[in-house]
Amino acid sequence: MAQLTYSPQPTELFPFDLVRPELERVEISIREQIRHFDPAVEPYIAYICNTSGKRIRPALAILIGGAVGGVTDDHLKIGVILELIHMATLVHDDIMDGANTRRMVPTANAKWGNALSVLLGDALFSHALTLATDFNSIDICRKVGNASREVCQGEIIQTQRRFDITFTKSDYFRVIEMKTGALFAAATGIAANLSGLSNSDEERLAGFGMKLGTVYQIYDDCLDLVGSEEVVGKTLRTDLIKGKLTLPILNLLDTASEEQRSKLNKRIMAQEPLDLAVILGITEYESAVESAINTGHDLLNQCRDDLSILSDSPQTRALNQITWFLAGLLEKCRP
Amino acid sequence: MAQLTYSPQPTELFPFDLVRPELERVEISIREQIRHFDPAVEPYIAYICNTSGKRIRPALAILIGGAVGGVTDDHLKIGVILELIHMATLVHDDIMDGANTRRMVPTANAKWGNALSVLLGDALFSHALTLATDFNSIDICRKVGNASREVCQGEIIQTQRRFDITFTKSDYFRVIEMKTGALFAAATGIAANLSGLSNSDEERLAGFGMKLGTVYQIYDDCLDLVGSEEVVGKTLRTDLIKGKLTLPILNLLDTASEEQRSKLNKRIMAQEPLDLAVILGITEYESAVESAINTGHDLLNQCRDDLSILSDSPQTRALNQITWFLAGLLEKCRP
Repeated sequence: MAQLTYSPQPTELFPFDLVRPELERVEISIREQIRHFDPAVEPYIAYICNTSGKRIRPALAILIGGAVGGVTDDHLKIGVILELIHMATLVHDDIMDGANTRRMVPTANAKWGNALSVLLGDALFSHALTLATDFNSIDICRKVGNASREVCQGEIIQTQRRFDITFTKSDYFRVIEMKTGALFAAATGIAANLSGLSNSDEERLAGFGMKLGTVYQIYDDCLDLVGSEEVVGKTLRTDLIKGKLTLPILNLLDTASEEQRSKLNKRIMAQEPLDLAVILGITEYESAVESAINTGHDLLNQCRDDLSILSDSPQTRALNQITWFLAGLLEKCRP
Repeated sequence: MAQLTYSPQPTELFPFDLVRPELERVEISIREQIRHFDPAVEPYIAYICNTSGKRIRPALAILIGGAVGGVTDDHLKIGVILELIHMATLVHDDIMDGANTRRMVPTANAKWGNALSVLLGDALFSHALTLATDFNSIDICRKVGNASREVCQGEIIQTQRRFDITFTKSDYFRVIEMKTGALFAAATGIAANLSGLSNSDEERLAGFGMKLGTVYQIYDDCLDLVGSEEVVGKTLRTDLIKGKLTLPILNLLDTASEEQRSKLNKRIMAQEPLDLAVILGITEYESAVESAINTGHDLLNQCRDDLSILSDSPQTRALNQITWFLAGLLEKCRP
C-alpha cells in the first residue's frame, strides 16, 4: 500500500525574502483596515485580520511592481485589497466546510457561529471593493470586481458539483482557474497595469498569475490527499469527505482498473466520502498523483516562459524562484 | 388582552404607478443580469432574480430622477445595482434566520442549502459592485461600496446584540439606518448625483432616503409584532424569537411595570424567545407600539420637509405620496 509521503512544515516559507519589508507594510496596512469598520464590528474584523497568511497575492503584486520600474504604494494597496477578498472567501469557506481551525487558530464560525461569519465575510468583501475606488481608476475597480465574482462562481460550481461523476478535468481546471487563479491573475495583471505596461504585457503577466494559481491549487489538492494533518496544521482529507473531485482523483478514475473505478463511482454516486484506505490500495494511485504533479510542472514551465518578457532583476529572479519553489512542493507530494 | 390588529394584503402596493413602465424595465434588466454569470451558475441566479420584490430602491431612484430633470438609463441602472445588493443581503439573511420561504416561495437556502446560498449571495454582491463600474464614476462606485458595507455592518451589530439588555434606542436607530437606511439613501442620493444636483441637494435627498428607510424598518418591526403570518406571507414573530430588540419592544421595556420589565429582562438575559402572549398581556403594550408609530410619523414629516427642495411635479407628488402611504401602513399597525 502506498504511504502518506509528504508532511511540509508550516515554517516552509515561500521565497519572499526580497519583499519582506514591503510585506511588513502590507501587514500593517491590513491591520489598519480594521479602523474603517464600525467600532462595534472592529473586534471581529481585527480577529480575522490578525490571523496570519502567506500573503502570496500581495507578494506577487509587489514583485511584479519591482520587476518593471519600481514598487509604489499602489502595488501595496492592490495587494491588500486582493488579500482582503481572499480573507473574505476563507471566512465563507470555513462556514461551508464546517472548519473549526485554520492556521492553527479557531475559525470565525467556530468562535461566533455561522450567522455572524456570513456577515463578516460580506463586510470584508464590501470593504475591499470600496477600497479599490482609492485608485481613481474604473478599470481597476472593474478588474477587482470581476476577479471577486470569478472566485465566488468558482466556489459555487465546485460546491454544486461535489459527488458528480460527470465532473471532467476540463471542469476541474475551469473551477480552479476561477476560484484560485483569478485572484493570482489580478495580483500580477493589475500590478503590471499600475506600472504602465502595455495591454499585451499585462495580459501575459495576468496569465502568469493564472497559471501559478492553478499550480498552487493542484498542489493544495495533492496535499489534501497525501499530507499529514498534524504537520500541515489544518484539517485534511476534506476533499475526499466532501466529494470534491480533484485532479489526482480524476486521474485515478481515468486509470484505475474497471473494478476499482466502479467501486469509487458507486461511492461517489451514493454521496459517500471517498475512502483514503481504498484509494491508497489502488495500484494506479501513485501514477494518478504523479500525473497531477507532472501537470503542475508543465504549467510552471509555461509560467517561466511568461516571465521571459521581464528584463533580468532581483524581482524577476524571485518570481522565477517561486515557480521552482512550487515545483519543489509538488515533488514532495510524489508518492 | 390586546389583539393582533393588522393584516396587510400582499397586494397592498406601494404607490409606484407613475413609474410602472420604468420599473418594468428594471425587472427586465434584473433578469438580464443572469447572463453575466457562468452558465453553471446562471440557473441559481435566475431563481433568485425571478423572485419578485417591491423594488422600492429602484422606484425611489427613478422618482428622484424624474423630479429633477428626467429619468435616464443611469437612474434605472443604479436602481438595478442597489436592488441586486438588497437581494444578496436577503439571501444571506434567510440563511441566518433559517427562513424557508420568502414572498411565498422557497428561499435559496431551503432549496440548495446554506453552503451554496452563502456563495450565491457573494456572487450577487460582487456582480452588483462590478456593475457599478459601468458609470465610469469612482465617486458612485465608492458610494455603492460604502452603502453595501453599511448594510453588512448594520446586520452584524444587530446579530451580535440579540438578547442584549444594554441595547439602547440610539443603538436601534444606528442599526436600522445602516441595514435599511443606507441603501434607500444611496438610491435617492446617487439618483440626485446622476442628475447633476449640488452636493447639498444630494445630501438632503440622501437624508430623505435615509429617514424613509428608517420608517420602513420601524413599520417592518411593528408588523413582525402585530401582523398575521398567513396574510403577510412570511414568517413573523422572528424578532421576538431571535431576541431582536426592536423599537416597540424597547418602548415596552421603558414603560412596562417593574415586575413586567423584570420578567422580560430575565427572558432576554436567558436568551429565551420573548413570549408574545406575555407581551400582549402587558398593559403598556399598546402605548409601546403607538409610540413607535408616532416616531415613524415624526420622521415622515421630516421626509416631507426634505422634499420641499424639489419643485412641484408628478414625481415630487409621488414621493410625497409614498410618505403618506407609509404613514397609512404605520396607522394600520396601531393596536
